[in-house]
Amino acid sequence: MTVNRLREEVSGLHNELVRYGLVAWTAGNVSGRVPGEDLFVIKPSGISYDDLNPDAIVVCDLDGKVVEGDLDPSSDTAAHAYVYREMPEVGGVVHTHSTYATAWAARAEAIPCVLTAMADEFGGEIPVGPFALIGNDDIGRGIVATLSGHRSPAVLMQNHGVFTIGKDAKAAVKAAVMCEDVARTVHLARQAGDLTPIAAEDIDRLYDRYQNVYGQR
Amino acid sequence: MTVNRLREEVSGLHNELVRYGLVAWTAGNVSGRVPGEDLFVIKPSGISYDDLNPDAIVVCDLDGKVVEGDLDPSSDTAAHAYVYREMPEVGGVVHTHSTYATAWAARAEAIPCVLTAMADEFGGEIPVGPFALIGNDDIGRGIVATLSGHRSPAVLMQNHGVFTIGKDAKAAVKAAVMCEDVARTVHLARQAGDLTPIAAEDIDRLYDRYQNVYGQR
Amino acid sequence: MTVNRLREEVSGLHNELVRYGLVAWTAGNVSGRVPGEDLFVIKPSGISYDDLNPDAIVVCDLDGKVVEGDLDPSSDTAAHAYVYREMPEVGGVVHTHSTYATAWAARAEAIPCVLTAMADEFGGEIPVGPFALIGNDDIGRGIVATLSGHRSPAVLMQNHGVFTIGKDAKAAVKAAVMCEDVARTVHLARQAGDLTPIAAEDIDRLYDRYQNVYGQR
Amino acid sequence: MTVNRLREEVSGLHNELVRYGLVAWTAGNVSGRVPGEDLFVIKPSGISYDDLNPDAIVVCDLDGKVVEGDLDPSSDTAAHAYVYREMPEVGGVVHTHSTYATAWAARAEAIPCVLTAMADEFGGEIPVGPFALIGNDDIGRGIVATLSGHRSPAVLMQNHGVFTIGKDAKAAVKAAVMCEDVARTVHLARQAGDLTPIAAEDIDRLYDRYQNVYGQR
Repeated sequence: MTVNRLREEVSGLHNELVRYGLVAWTAGNVSGRVPGEDLFVIKPSGISYDDLNPDAIVVCDLDGKVVEGDLDPSSDTAAHAYVYREMPEVGGVVHTHSTYATAWAARAEAIPCVLTAMADEFGGEIPVGPFALIGNDDIGRGIVATLSGHRSPAVLMQNHGVFTIGKDAKAAVKAAVMCEDVARTVHLARQAGDLTPIAAEDIDRLYDRYQNVYGQR
Repeated sequence: MTVNRLREEVSGLHNELVRYGLVAWTAGNVSGRVPGEDLFVIKPSGISYDDLNPDAIVVCDLDGKVVEGDLDPSSDTAAHAYVYREMPEVGGVVHTHSTYATAWAARAEAIPCVLTAMADEFGGEIPVGPFALIGNDDIGRGIVATLSGHRSPAVLMQNHGVFTIGKDAKAAVKAAVMCEDVARTVHLARQAGDLTPIAAEDIDRLYDRYQNVYGQR
Repeated sequence: MTVNRLREEVSGLHNELVRYGLVAWTAGNVSGRVPGEDLFVIKPSGISYDDLNPDAIVVCDLDGKVVEGDLDPSSDTAAHAYVYREMPEVGGVVHTHSTYATAWAARAEAIPCVLTAMADEFGGEIPVGPFALIGNDDIGRGIVATLSGHRSPAVLMQNHGVFTIGKDAKAAVKAAVMCEDVARTVHLARQAGDLTPIAAEDIDRLYDRYQNVYGQR
Repeated sequence: MTVNRLREEVSGLHNELVRYGLVAWTAGNVSGRVPGEDLFVIKPSGISYDDLNPDAIVVCDLDGKVVEGDLDPSSDTAAHAYVYREMPEVGGVVHTHSTYATAWAARAEAIPCVLTAMADEFGGEIPVGPFALIGNDDIGRGIVATLSGHRSPAVLMQNHGVFTIGKDAKAAVKAAVMCEDVARTVHLARQAGDLTPIAAEDIDRLYDRYQNVYGQR
């Protein structure tokens, strides 16, 4: 995939964040790794989703330095860059402050796996990462430390919001959409009484099947 | 109704799932029985609602084997097929993970009938079906066992989501829409205090009238 | 206003019920009195909002008998007709099962007036009407008995939903929109702690000012 | 910026209130100060957002008297005018009854700062202003007294709703959008358990960075 085709795809994927109500104003961003190169593309900082287009998407190296583009990149660029440096299997990263997921993050509480759809996509609970300030590698470090060796492609960064990863940008967006969906459903379920757990071995079976069988061959 | 006309209808009915916010990403599906034949049509697996069209809809026999179509059918096809095999009066099946209904399912709790609209459409509570893994007939068996001899066209499958049935696909979609609507209203009502019950004989009167009088003759 | 102009207006006002999310499937209706005649126009029964148009709107006399139109009128026609017979100052009636308002109705609990916007539009609490079955004048009787001598243009019919009245159909639709809006806000406010009351004389002042000063002269 | 260009901008910004669901019917308004003149422009009273256009926007002096425009200005004009008189640095004011923020206002409770996005935009809690009746300068006085010397551009007026300020109308609209967003997230977070606080010095660091670094240079 060329850089320009990737810019187009990443620009368009921001529409999914808007469609599913995961972002307010300009607070959320998608990035994608350029296949075979030490580069990724990301949303510019503070640009509204209505004004986004492929040309506005910024190309950065894995230290987060701009190598192409007229605009300043997302203020979350350092976190995305850190993930691409440390997790070579990751091809896409998404960040949102989606409402229900961020509510769990404001309590620093992991979302328990009580839905088959959650077992399918996340393979267990959605974990909490540390509180970290913006401005250096602390957020990236927290994401990588939490997701390494975890099946979940989503982490709730304490008092902050959600970061998701995927094999490409679209997969990371799907994880962000599903993260908010299950965060909301489990929040509502627990409001009204005790949750019914799913046995660990059933979570394993659901996860294995979904990762291998779902969708088109 | 020809198979192609049914494909068109079933394809279009997925828009109602989107419109009413019952589905995230690709997680929900509609099927319809081909009148007079041992066949039904169903959504393909993992295809986005934007990309759905009549040609993408898959035709299956009542064992869930594809007889026409280029795509793999929904991963829930076995459950739909089981319902069509065991409940000959059913002409349409819908599956969603709609938020509030699934929240009740995560507690394995039936929705009590405290609304006249719920008496109209469901004739009583919306029942809970068993926990069942995907991959064989367990989900279908749970749906049929729960709904047989019940007035409700909707069942909350434990830790999973909703299945609804109807005389045709449109009726099953309506049941899915109304199920989420009453799941939300009753959830919110109970959050704030004790529910006011409706007498069983009034539920019967409402159900009988609605099934016979509502709509155009 | 001619009957045809009124049909157009009442048909179009249903779009506001959809826009504000007050209705699911076909469950909600607007009617308007024909000025200077013992007639009103109302939505047909079980027709989707997408398919509604001025020609589909039914003209009824004040006993609810169809005098013009090819379709059967709303199953709530008897309630609308009763209101027009008994409250000559009423020019529009709206019925919905809007979520939050219906949640209060499922507990048979009035909505306390703790918002200035509620004082403006409703002049105090939104009251609860009796449980009543469809099929005769019981619902209409309950609406009229509750709203007569009350400043609120909205009543929460127990276990059922909302009926609103207004000087014309648009005013009744506005009351239905504002009823759901305050039902939601007060529900959420009370979930999290004690409500701060508004003094009765301040409610009076707000109501008097809004009814006389708001909008264009 | 000419008055006509400002009218266009302020007219268009009302679409953001609609898009983010901050307003029902006609209950919310945006105003903007005319640069270099003792004038501001504001929404007319009781006009629907669909019918709004630049010509409908009213020009007022800082006493709230109409100097140009055919329509009566918003019933909240006196409050906007008071803010422009007393806070010369303010270039835009927004008023809404957005649901979650107004729910906090109905309990007269400030929103605690437990989200990094809230530290960024509000620099701490969102404070509560006094109960005040419409009709004189009391609301304006309450806004100015609460926001003077406060970092938050938003105030929750008790039992009423939200007023936000900004360097221009767009900044005030952004504050209104973010206020509802954090009001909702913190409400939901606290429903389910104890909030995790953010240290005061971290709030300071986040606020300083966001005000100086975010967006394009």
